[in-house]
Amino acid sequence: SQYTRTCRLDVEKRQSVLYVLGTTLKASLNRSAPPKTKYFSVKCTDNVQYIISPLLQTTSYLSPVPLMDNSVLLITMKEASVHENDNKLSVWYYDADKTVLDKAVLHLTGVDISLDVDADRDGFVEKNNPNKNTWKWGPHGHGAILLVNCDAESLYKKRPDHERNIKRRMSSDVKDMSPMVLRTKGPAKLPEGYKLVLHICQSDGEKIRVFISSGKRDKNIHTDMDHYPLVLYSASLSKEIPYLGNDEIKFYVEGVKFPDKDFDGLIHINLSLLEPISEGIPETPIFTDAVVFRVAPWIMTPNTLRPVEVFVCSTKDNYKFLKGMKSLVESSGYKLKICHEYMNRGDRWMQDELEFGYIDSPHHGFPVVLDSPRDQQLDDFPYDVLLGPDFGYVTREPKRKDVSSLDSFGNLEVSPPVTVNGKHYPLGRIIIGVAFPTASKGRNMTKMVQDFLWAQTVQEPIALFSDWLEVGHVDEFMSFVPAKDRKGFRLLLASPDAGYKLFKNLQNDGHGDAKLFEDIPDEPTITVNEILADKILQDENNYSQSCIDWNRDVLKRELGLDDEDIIDLPVLFKLVEDGGQYRALAYYPDMVNMIVLGENLGIPKPFGPKVNGVCALEQEMVSLMGNLGLTCTFIDDFTSYHKLMGEVHCGSNVRRSPFDFKWWNMEM
Amino acid sequence: SQYTRTCRLDVEKRQSVLYVLGTTLKASLNRSAPPKTKYFSVKCTDNVQYIISPLLQTTSYLSPVPLMDNSVLLITMKEASVHENDNKLSVWYYDADKTVLDKAVLHLTGVDISLDVDADRDGFVEKNNPNKNTWKWGPHGHGAILLVNCDAESLYKKRPDHERNIKRRMSSDVKDMSPMVLRTKGPAKLPEGYKLVLHICQSDGEKIRVFISSGKRDKNIHTDMDHYPLVLYSASLSKEIPYLGNDEIKFYVEGVKFPDKDFDGLIHINLSLLEPISEGIPETPIFTDAVVFRVAPWIMTPNTLRPVEVFVCSTKDNYKFLKGMKSLVESSGYKLKICHEYMNRGDRWMQDELEFGYIDSPHHGFPVVLDSPRDQQLDDFPYDVLLGPDFGYVTREPKRKDVSSLDSFGNLEVSPPVTVNGKHYPLGRIIIGVAFPTASKGRNMTKMVQDFLWAQTVQEPIALFSDWLEVGHVDEFMSFVPAKDRKGFRLLLASPDAGYKLFKNLQNDGHGDAKLFEDIPDEPTITVNEILADKILQDENNYSQSCIDWNRDVLKRELGLDDEDIIDLPVLFKLVEDGGQYRALAYYPDMVNMIVLGENLGIPKPFGPKVNGVCALEQEMVSLMGNLGLTCTFIDDFTSYHKLMGEVHCGSNVRRSPFDFKWWNMEM
Ligand SMILES: [Ca+2]
Ligand SMILES: [Ca+2]
Ligand SMILES: [Ca+2]
Ligand SMILES: [Ca+2]
Repeated sequence: SQYTRTCRLDVEKRQSVLYVLGTTLKASLNRSAPPKTKYFSVKCTDNVQYIISPLLQTTSYLSPVPLMDNSVLLITMKEASVHENDNKLSVWYYDADKTVLDKAVLHLTGVDISLDVDADRDGFVEKNNPNKNTWKWGPHGHGAILLVNCDAESLYKKRPDHERNIKRRMSSDVKDMSPMVLRTKGPAKLPEGYKLVLHICQSDGEKIRVFISSGKRDKNIHTDMDHYPLVLYSASLSKEIPYLGNDEIKFYVEGVKFPDKDFDGLIHINLSLLEPISEGIPETPIFTDAVVFRVAPWIMTPNTLRPVEVFVCSTKDNYKFLKGMKSLVESSGYKLKICHEYMNRGDRWMQDELEFGYIDSPHHGFPVVLDSPRDQQLDDFPYDVLLGPDFGYVTREPKRKDVSSLDSFGNLEVSPPVTVNGKHYPLGRIIIGVAFPTASKGRNMTKMVQDFLWAQTVQEPIALFSDWLEVGHVDEFMSFVPAKDRKGFRLLLASPDAGYKLFKNLQNDGHGDAKLFEDIPDEPTITVNEILADKILQDENNYSQSCIDWNRDVLKRELGLDDEDIIDLPVLFKLVEDGGQYRALAYYPDMVNMIVLGENLGIPKPFGPKVNGVCALEQEMVSLMGNLGLTCTFIDDFTSYHKLMGEVHCGSNVRRSPFDFKWWNMEM
Repeated sequence: SQYTRTCRLDVEKRQSVLYVLGTTLKASLNRSAPPKTKYFSVKCTDNVQYIISPLLQTTSYLSPVPLMDNSVLLITMKEASVHENDNKLSVWYYDADKTVLDKAVLHLTGVDISLDVDADRDGFVEKNNPNKNTWKWGPHGHGAILLVNCDAESLYKKRPDHERNIKRRMSSDVKDMSPMVLRTKGPAKLPEGYKLVLHICQSDGEKIRVFISSGKRDKNIHTDMDHYPLVLYSASLSKEIPYLGNDEIKFYVEGVKFPDKDFDGLIHINLSLLEPISEGIPETPIFTDAVVFRVAPWIMTPNTLRPVEVFVCSTKDNYKFLKGMKSLVESSGYKLKICHEYMNRGDRWMQDELEFGYIDSPHHGFPVVLDSPRDQQLDDFPYDVLLGPDFGYVTREPKRKDVSSLDSFGNLEVSPPVTVNGKHYPLGRIIIGVAFPTASKGRNMTKMVQDFLWAQTVQEPIALFSDWLEVGHVDEFMSFVPAKDRKGFRLLLASPDAGYKLFKNLQNDGHGDAKLFEDIPDEPTITVNEILADKILQDENNYSQSCIDWNRDVLKRELGLDDEDIIDLPVLFKLVEDGGQYRALAYYPDMVNMIVLGENLGIPKPFGPKVNGVCALEQEMVSLMGNLGLTCTFIDDFTSYHKLMGEVHCGSNVRRSPFDFKWWNMEM
């Protein structure tokens, strides 16, 4: 065994030693030998084993053997004691004539102590896993896992559980926590003055709380509240734990902080056995067992995962949109959840206020909403409506002045699983939009949220350039749809070039007089010929295309995509001036800004030029998506969303099933 | 080459493209093809190369070949251009009859751009090292190195250079910085509107500064000040850099922050080529080159390294000590530097106020003093006396209330190089003293200094238990001395057991009446018999031995030591009460608290019991050290240090030569 403890032999006083199974006691024979000692011998009870180092040419130490300067005794025990001091080892010292000079006696009590966790990640707390105090990624890895207890068990005065300062917890709450077990074996009591202490370091005190099972559960008490008292937290970093002999004590560990810039997610819990010295002198730890946990990261869910619920806002003016969405969602077999006006207070951008994700561990998992620092009128929705039992909540709150339009979560997406130059991302990669790093000024996603996203580590983020857009969200130029072939998905990109190509073909085929926006009341129409004749618009779209191409190159590199994995959608942009800067907006409803529900796509109705009564843009879209086996439903969002600078995706949000792949099986 | 950029072909407007050598331009042939296109052909100038993807069954694209949906053109250039647009590629489009429909023309200008650093660590900036943007430890590693410019070039209004806010630097200062070179090749000017921009991210802006060489040095100007203007720092994260055609521009990079809890030491510098779009629209980066630096860690020097200077304080009452030290240091061939009373203001604890270390890089290195947060009367010495040209200064300043006696640097030591379970520590391991983690209260080295020490990473710290001592410093019970055999050193430990053994042997040999402290005026003497009869003192020493044994076990485990690597020195302790806690002090001068100068040891004179006029403690010491070829000089520090709770080591400090081993060659 690795853990060796030096102990003293003393000829003047019999010594009592508490021995922990699996460790080794080491005693210098020479240090305690009386003057003139030349020989020594050793005797011990059956349960005790010893080795003399250096080894002598002898089969037995029962009769006197020569004492050397560096003679050392290594002592172990086979089993835990039944009674205190039920084992003994004695060393006899002799002079040159082999006359006894004195003897040193060790009375030994053996105890077995193990602090246990689910280090093999099968949902059960095994006994004394040799890897319990290290953490390793991958299917052959090990190390226990902790959830941030960020759901709310009770809806009365609702708060995330990990933010409650109550010192006892109910049983419905400990199931969100990781079990930890102290197993002991030995005499009914520890020798006088010895103590078991559970302890954590100060920085871990801010990251976890440990609760203890009261053990003796009274079946007759109708409520199970008050049965799990708090033992370790930031203001109490160490706690004496009763030693119960041959028994076990169950603990529950709660995470209170997600991995972040200043926290790699790992925390350690230690159990020490303390030896008393005397009044006023601190006890000495003579054995320490340690376990490690990693706090589960927050994980995002890409468009390729199965939808569970779809959320939209109801406003005074979006009846047509709601009707289209309801029909699409219900015919796809999912549930549409409507956030009503008393809650949304007129804010229709359901995509932007929150991002759905989840946390997971071998024993439990649940969805967690990340609340955006955007904080407009929808601000209360994630906390007031979503947070609840087994539905967690997390947010990052930067200073107001640091928040921009790029902090809305239409600017936070995630790719399907990819492999890039041999590196696997089985949970995909997070995608955010920022300003060019070279830009002297520019809007950015706030550092506080970016730091949080990076610190989750399992979906390594990619930064795209989205500041060229007036609204500045990546969902204005990209989306992912499922596909049965290739990598299991396609990247859809808005493409002004594809738009111009489609319009030129229409002109070429004699449809130059076809009109856009024909069926929209009060909206001026414009013909294909007029669009193609507008050289300024062409320049603006060349610029937009170059911005998208820059992002296209980054996405290809960072997601390991080929051109064949990308589909260009015919979308035009126009530039608008805003404080001296020109930025882009969709010219007609931006078809890439869609909602993806399995094989059914809800796409902003583009109101493009018609050929034989059929919208050429819709037709192109139906053809491109049809090749992938996907069905397009066009939803009229023109007045209620497009004119307000957003589309279908901006106005909706989808909670999806977690990945089948378990995050701790990633190779990092 | 890895870096591929999408570019547009346009049949309506000739396109000018700036190409960067080593990259690839990629253009969709289909996107720009006029309606009805069925065939295409490609022509280009000699310096241009292209590939069509997917590859067609043809040897030449000079005559029309069929256009496919996914036809893509991959363009590279062999050499930099001499003039703008001196190269050309054109794509001709044909209809089904192979009649020309239109053509798209690309005018190409090739430039070669490389941001270079000393990534191979040979002291010279090589050209375009393929590994320049990653950092790898070890002798086969790569990645450039940065020094924190923490020395002070000028003694006038002295400040560490990296804390000066002046925007220009002199040439003596840039030699502390890492050179970085921008090498360019191409036409004399970039095409209209293109720009080179050097940029860093916000968090790196707090960690480095970049200066530029003015280039045209005038030999007639007698001072070389003002020649290195500041270009990048926290308030200016990006800067346009002139493009000079076939030329190079030299930069100098200064570190301003040591690795710490929130900084892993790596920083990135980027150079981007920006393409103009039009007024009011941010330029698009079309090429980015990046380099990485690691900030050199602060490194401590163990007792086994060659001394350079020895520092002590002169006080009203320490003449005898000074005389002893001067004689030892000078006869050992080193220089004794005395800090006089006007500077030390009566504070004699030279060991405690500062720790000597150094920083190193392939181009330069210098000593750096770590100033302790102890901040007693010696506080000004490190800054006022030591800081200077090529002598750096660093400190960490926690809140006053967080500072305890454990923050004195007698509680901060470093081991010689060790190998532990196959893991090499070629620079040794830092050793600090703390309270037991299980202690409900207790003194500790402040977290701020501990965080700094851990963050240096190359001398992974070991925490010992030193809070059992009244003063609480690890140098009260341990030291390292050089040895020619085994691991190249021995660990010396104070040992009450060894002390008692020696005293018992004396008693046994009839010297029980021999007196301690005989030659000290006004100090009561005590006999060996009296010491051995004091059962309370025996208990206190048993406790002290158990504390040392606990540390002994940790040191054996963490330094990979055998018992044969450790020498027990006969030292007794006594306990004193301090605010309800009992803590230990040396009973007689603590011989382990020594100064090590090569093979010469300066040891507190123990004033032990004499046998035939010879001090038995000195004799034991001479014998133990003599076995290692080391010479003992006993220095009388009884009145001026020992009675004030310190000894020789506490009252001195040694600046030593750096390791021959270069820290970046560590395998991490
Ligand atoms: Ca298990
Ligand atoms: Ca809960
Ligand atoms: Ca080099
Ligand atoms: Ca300098």
